[in-house]
Amino acid sequence: MQHSRRQFIKTSAAIATGLSVALLPAGVNAGQKGMKPSSSGNSLSSLLPAGGKAGGKAPSAKMKLSWRAYDLALKHTFTISGFSRKSTPVVLTKIEYEGVTGYGEASLPPYLGETQASVIEFLKKIDLSRFSTPSHMEDILTYVDNIAINNSAAKASVDIALHDLVGKMIGVPWYNMYGLDKTEVPYTTFTIGIDSDDVVKEKTREVLGDFNILKVKVGGPDDKRMIKAIRSVTDLPLAVDANQGWKERLEALDMILWLKEEGIVMVEQPMPKLKLDDIAWLTEESPLPIFADESVQRLSDLHRLKGVFSGINIKLMKCTGMREAWKMRNLAEALGMKVMMGCMTETSCAISAASQLYAGMDFADLDGALLIANDCFDGATLQNGKIIATDLPGIGVVPNKLFDTNW
Amino acid sequence: MQHSRRQFIKTSAAIATGLSVALLPAGVNAGQKGMKPSSSGNSLSSLLPAGGKAGGKAPSAKMKLSWRAYDLALKHTFTISGFSRKSTPVVLTKIEYEGVTGYGEASLPPYLGETQASVIEFLKKIDLSRFSTPSHMEDILTYVDNIAINNSAAKASVDIALHDLVGKMIGVPWYNMYGLDKTEVPYTTFTIGIDSDDVVKEKTREVLGDFNILKVKVGGPDDKRMIKAIRSVTDLPLAVDANQGWKERLEALDMILWLKEEGIVMVEQPMPKLKLDDIAWLTEESPLPIFADESVQRLSDLHRLKGVFSGINIKLMKCTGMREAWKMRNLAEALGMKVMMGCMTETSCAISAASQLYAGMDFADLDGALLIANDCFDGATLQNGKIIATDLPGIGVVPNKLFDTNW
Repeated sequence: MQHSRRQFIKTSAAIATGLSVALLPAGVNAGQKGMKPSSSGNSLSSLLPAGGKAGGKAPSAKMKLSWRAYDLALKHTFTISGFSRKSTPVVLTKIEYEGVTGYGEASLPPYLGETQASVIEFLKKIDLSRFSTPSHMEDILTYVDNIAINNSAAKASVDIALHDLVGKMIGVPWYNMYGLDKTEVPYTTFTIGIDSDDVVKEKTREVLGDFNILKVKVGGPDDKRMIKAIRSVTDLPLAVDANQGWKERLEALDMILWLKEEGIVMVEQPMPKLKLDDIAWLTEESPLPIFADESVQRLSDLHRLKGVFSGINIKLMKCTGMREAWKMRNLAEALGMKVMMGCMTETSCAISAASQLYAGMDFADLDGALLIANDCFDGATLQNGKIIATDLPGIGVVPNKLFDTNW
Repeated sequence: MQHSRRQFIKTSAAIATGLSVALLPAGVNAGQKGMKPSSSGNSLSSLLPAGGKAGGKAPSAKMKLSWRAYDLALKHTFTISGFSRKSTPVVLTKIEYEGVTGYGEASLPPYLGETQASVIEFLKKIDLSRFSTPSHMEDILTYVDNIAINNSAAKASVDIALHDLVGKMIGVPWYNMYGLDKTEVPYTTFTIGIDSDDVVKEKTREVLGDFNILKVKVGGPDDKRMIKAIRSVTDLPLAVDANQGWKERLEALDMILWLKEEGIVMVEQPMPKLKLDDIAWLTEESPLPIFADESVQRLSDLHRLKGVFSGINIKLMKCTGMREAWKMRNLAEALGMKVMMGCMTETSCAISAASQLYAGMDFADLDGALLIANDCFDGATLQNGKIIATDLPGIGVVPNKLFDTNW
């Protein structure tokens, strides 16, 4: 017991320290104001039990938050109802504390209103020096949340970095702290973009071996053609996301009844987000479960949706991060609602964060990192159609060679 | 960093191992079926990250659940509306896994329907050997919950022991995993029992230096006399618990208006638990916050109480333990309701478990272990009127010399 525990911790400490050492030129880390990487001899005492030392001295180290804008290059042009794009802007974050670095990310698809500039403006307002230890996550994240309304992705970038930091200091991945079996996760959907029949068939064939459920963006004139093109190639279960595309409830129900016959298993956001009465009617009539996406953002939105939707799509970027996502999941389950984990186009940083907390959910849409050509993190990977977290502590990521260390 | 981390872990491992070694005669531990205390060299690999080893071998060790009935001797005869008693039966539990022992407890006040026999009968049905690692807490506790309805205290005794075990294996107290500052807790109330004026005044004087808020059981003919007796001695804030004692809403409101004038700050369960319409009216009219106790048991009860009560009293013994208590707290906060942490008469084992998760709540009633003469655990202590968790991992307890090790 003692032996193997110590063995583990040596490895773990090497991992944690190795991350920051490998990433940062020595001068950067050593020169940081308030950082005492190894000389304090007290690095973990504020986070971890003092082991009998009553009281203990006040920690002198401070957390240091930094960030860098980064543009994700999409492998393929991405089209959903109304938008096409070839790249997604993100802001990468890190929080350093006593030689340990936690990584985070804000993904900023243009239709959600946040930009790299707005994220950076928000991050500049954050003063983590007022907190003595990263372990007071509730206090820290409540403070961050109260700095300004909205800015959900910016807040998520802090939340994820803080979770990564604290998980590394404790030395375990978050799925352990949530009490979850990381392998008991739903298959992730993979989205087939709207395109010509030939391209759709070709794309579907390409991914057949890797996924066990596909997703189609519907809500436009191409819906039936798209489904038929995919169905000519595979009988795999399909999810559809209408992105508020159907405007009338009878039109939506007709379409859902047709989709049911075609082997579709769930429908996301069939109608405009505020048409809750129509959606409640549709959910009641629909043979398929109806999930809220645009209609649900944060924890406080959720209890109003019981009886309106069958379930909700939780995304870190819209709900401010892991802490609130975990609370939303538990609330939804308490309300008897289904839950799915979604994502934006984002690196393996945010995807790995999501991978910590979605075991046991009903559906998953975590293909975000698979769609980009310049993922700068190694983390959760696709295994037999499921996105599985690594065994590493925190959110389970390591920056790779694409990660620019110069910040 | 590496140095201090290793230092910490050495101490922590010594603590964790020390607990089981000190408690159990060597023969007991070594002789347990399936236990490999130190020879496996792999004790934590199933819980903690493998440190680069992909795959890893399947763990061979099993969790072992055991229990023992124990009677808590109350320091003073305890009276609430309708009941008096001098002792409280409990069942102590432990879960052992690879040389680490987690402790739990079921407290069984007679009016709640569970007994030592019913708890033991329930515990005998549990087969933890079907789980390969304690870290899959969601799966394990869902399985335990589904064995039979009710049996909430029995379920809590497993939940608490499992949390203690997993926290010790990870090496941190649960308040760290919840992201809480363990010192930012509300003052605990201390209950002044119903008695003659002289005894009430004497008891109040005795505890004045130790507590910053007192609690009075009301709902009977002695209410005003009791409050006046206490008020002749102190101006401290008072909480009152009516235990469903007021039968009519106008009677209840009259009493609450009088109590408000006397400096009472909150009211628990003013009326019978199913009279939700009357209670909703009362909450609307009352100048004091109204908390549910008997009206709320588990997570699934909670969303119906929004708009009925101002807040809820969460007790581990009625909600099946820490996991559901944490979810209830988050749900209540999401619904905009206040939250208090309560307890039964119980040892420092269950009180310490509660102390892990109540930072930031509105009120606390955690005097349970202070009322007993034979507390067999050292754990959370009263400090300046607040019950504060220790720095030890898990739920932060150590069995003391009153703990019978022979089971």
